[in-house]
Amino acid sequence: MRMVDVIAKKRDGQELTKEEIQFVIDGYTKEDIPDYQMSAFSMAVFFQGMTKEERVYLTEAMVKSGEQIDLSAIEGIKVDKHSTGGVGDTTTLVLGPLVASVGAPVAKMSGRGLGHTGGTIDKLESVKGFHVEITNDEFIHLMNTNKIAVIGQSDNLTPADKKLYALRDVTSTVDSIPLIASSIMSKKIAAGADAIVLDVKTGSGAFMKSLEDAKELAQAMVEIGNGVGRKTKAIISDMSQPLGFAVGNALEVKEAIDTLSGQGPKDLHELCLTLGSHMVVLANKASNLEQAREMLEEAIQSGKALESFKTFLQAQGGDASVVDDPTKLPTAQYKIEVPANESGYVAEITAEMIGVAAMMLGAGRITKDSEIDLAVGIVLHKKVGDFVNEGESIVTIHSNKENVSDVTEKIRAAYKFSSENISAPTLIYTEIQ
Amino acid sequence: MRMVDVIAKKRDGQELTKEEIQFVIDGYTKEDIPDYQMSAFSMAVFFQGMTKEERVYLTEAMVKSGEQIDLSAIEGIKVDKHSTGGVGDTTTLVLGPLVASVGAPVAKMSGRGLGHTGGTIDKLESVKGFHVEITNDEFIHLMNTNKIAVIGQSDNLTPADKKLYALRDVTSTVDSIPLIASSIMSKKIAAGADAIVLDVKTGSGAFMKSLEDAKELAQAMVEIGNGVGRKTKAIISDMSQPLGFAVGNALEVKEAIDTLSGQGPKDLHELCLTLGSHMVVLANKASNLEQAREMLEEAIQSGKALESFKTFLQAQGGDASVVDDPTKLPTAQYKIEVPANESGYVAEITAEMIGVAAMMLGAGRITKDSEIDLAVGIVLHKKVGDFVNEGESIVTIHSNKENVSDVTEKIRAAYKFSSENISAPTLIYTEIQ
Repeated sequence: MRMVDVIAKKRDGQELTKEEIQFVIDGYTKEDIPDYQMSAFSMAVFFQGMTKEERVYLTEAMVKSGEQIDLSAIEGIKVDKHSTGGVGDTTTLVLGPLVASVGAPVAKMSGRGLGHTGGTIDKLESVKGFHVEITNDEFIHLMNTNKIAVIGQSDNLTPADKKLYALRDVTSTVDSIPLIASSIMSKKIAAGADAIVLDVKTGSGAFMKSLEDAKELAQAMVEIGNGVGRKTKAIISDMSQPLGFAVGNALEVKEAIDTLSGQGPKDLHELCLTLGSHMVVLANKASNLEQAREMLEEAIQSGKALESFKTFLQAQGGDASVVDDPTKLPTAQYKIEVPANESGYVAEITAEMIGVAAMMLGAGRITKDSEIDLAVGIVLHKKVGDFVNEGESIVTIHSNKENVSDVTEKIRAAYKFSSENISAPTLIYTEIQ
Repeated sequence: MRMVDVIAKKRDGQELTKEEIQFVIDGYTKEDIPDYQMSAFSMAVFFQGMTKEERVYLTEAMVKSGEQIDLSAIEGIKVDKHSTGGVGDTTTLVLGPLVASVGAPVAKMSGRGLGHTGGTIDKLESVKGFHVEITNDEFIHLMNTNKIAVIGQSDNLTPADKKLYALRDVTSTVDSIPLIASSIMSKKIAAGADAIVLDVKTGSGAFMKSLEDAKELAQAMVEIGNGVGRKTKAIISDMSQPLGFAVGNALEVKEAIDTLSGQGPKDLHELCLTLGSHMVVLANKASNLEQAREMLEEAIQSGKALESFKTFLQAQGGDASVVDDPTKLPTAQYKIEVPANESGYVAEITAEMIGVAAMMLGAGRITKDSEIDLAVGIVLHKKVGDFVNEGESIVTIHSNKENVSDVTEKIRAAYKFSSENISAPTLIYTEIQ
């Protein structure tokens, strides 16, 4: 088999066989196939797409390129959740303890973040003493005891995907549904979950700006997941404005605590209940979504969800008392209000700009080696559809530097007002299975 | 400017600016832009094409990447001819002396061949003593004296094209009209001709199998030529069967001598008169094609054309007596007839198989370093439409090895017969200007 022929076949719109796709991914991982052939191949895929079968083969080949985590020692159906990313997305912090509290095991393999805010591990490290440096045996023990644990991501997962993603990034071949879908799904599948719930974001702050594209990506991922024997569902949710109120590591932990107590932002609460219900049903802990939702609501109201969070933090060395007293979380030196320049309804909050503003404060990493400031970030007071009076604070900036004029400017630029009544955007568009 | 953005722009079907194309070619030549970006770019061009303006910019950028030959010291309008290649194409050997004999200067920069038979230089080296190792001054002097000379190709012409072509070859991005057209035209333009006549082949033995594709390529090349200020015309001619009778280096020289004497194969004669007429008109040596054709026919009949060939050979060290006595050309040890297995009309001669058969005898190079045998080759006796009786020879094999069963088999496989009357294929389809 020659790579040049496989490229031509894809270029001409023919379907590749399992063997051909395996040859491409194997060869690329082993460096038998050079970057210049792989980038031409990726561009051909960009134009010609891939069939459902090809996507499954591609994902399987990438999974096989590295380590595959074996979670079989953990009891029950392990459910994972993946979000395609956005600004202020605190769902993972909430969903883990919430879903675990009703008996569905959430075995989380997580990484550090790059961009707007930290990753799940960064956020959790806002809790003094919390760490993910645990052995596999400890991980399995904690999972069987508490139904929730977080371990650092293995460096050996899907090396083919890592290599290919870096190449796509510099050859303008990122925006291809089959390549995006197989990249995400290969990582999830290699991480060992039995079932996967996907939160595909759409809107100005999401990677998929249009609902159509988000649906297509969701469909592709669900087909791949089910195609390789992992029960997979997706929902499409809004990212036309930041989710919840908080953007920043400790601030998001605080917001997660609020949400687990039933005091969180309405949109974050609703999204967590929707995603959580799917996770509980896939884990066979409820027979339908209504029942699952009732269980989760009860867990919040009874304090079981919050208790699950405490147990989880403590089990991994964290100071669980922050849950009852969030002032123990890292706190920024300055709290600076940003007052509205005009009265009106909030018509738009450009999520990306809010994310950039948080990054300017030090909440996120610009490069892999950046140090992040866990205390800083942004708390929104007004979301799309809210009425605001001139001079009223729209946002509180939590900063460790006094002069935040650049951040304020960015935030003001993110907000657009209207004199006419604006309704809040739809939060959950649809569900794909 | 970033290459990744230029790739994305082309990928999304937007027109690139002159500066962007210059950036791509400059950067690639200087190795600032890596192969993996260039191959993704080429695949994007494969799918999105290029506008007329983009093709001109691309060609100009490739021309500027290396040496540009200055032929201004040669009097008159220098006309070059280019054929897109085929089997048994002896036109260059005929056209040079023929067109020069009526006063149009043919300054030929030529190379060695790879594939079916040798290049123009290889063929001419069948004439004892002939060489192309002449200085630029000698070349110019010979041109001004005889109107024809051949010099070896500079190694410094269009390095960007050389590099890009090698990359396209291994990334399945060869079959792109804008890339093919700019590749061919950049070499012709850098070689310094004022006017260019293109012979674009179509049919089973040509690179462009369909007439539509051939027309599109011809149109693209004519637009580029005229776009950079070189008067350019193209004709589309048949390569559904080999051109003329001879395939092989010395055999083609013999056939050129025959044609220059008015005794050549009908198709080769006709094609040379058509191409030649365009060259003469572009060189301003005739006011229209009819007049040009009359001049060329007169040159053949009067012996002027043959005389021009002699002068040319002698001027570059060749033994011109071969023109009067072609038995002085290298001769193969064995002449083996291939008799027809059946009676009928020749319905098809797969040109590629005839080419491969000649290569098996040693007439062409398999790799750049192969030695070629100038004496060997194939002479066809029957072309498409001819009637042949069982046992009658269809082909004579000129070989230096006695056992040619493999070659015979190849030739037999190339010929298809029909019991019904078959008409000869159209030789010249159309003309593009």
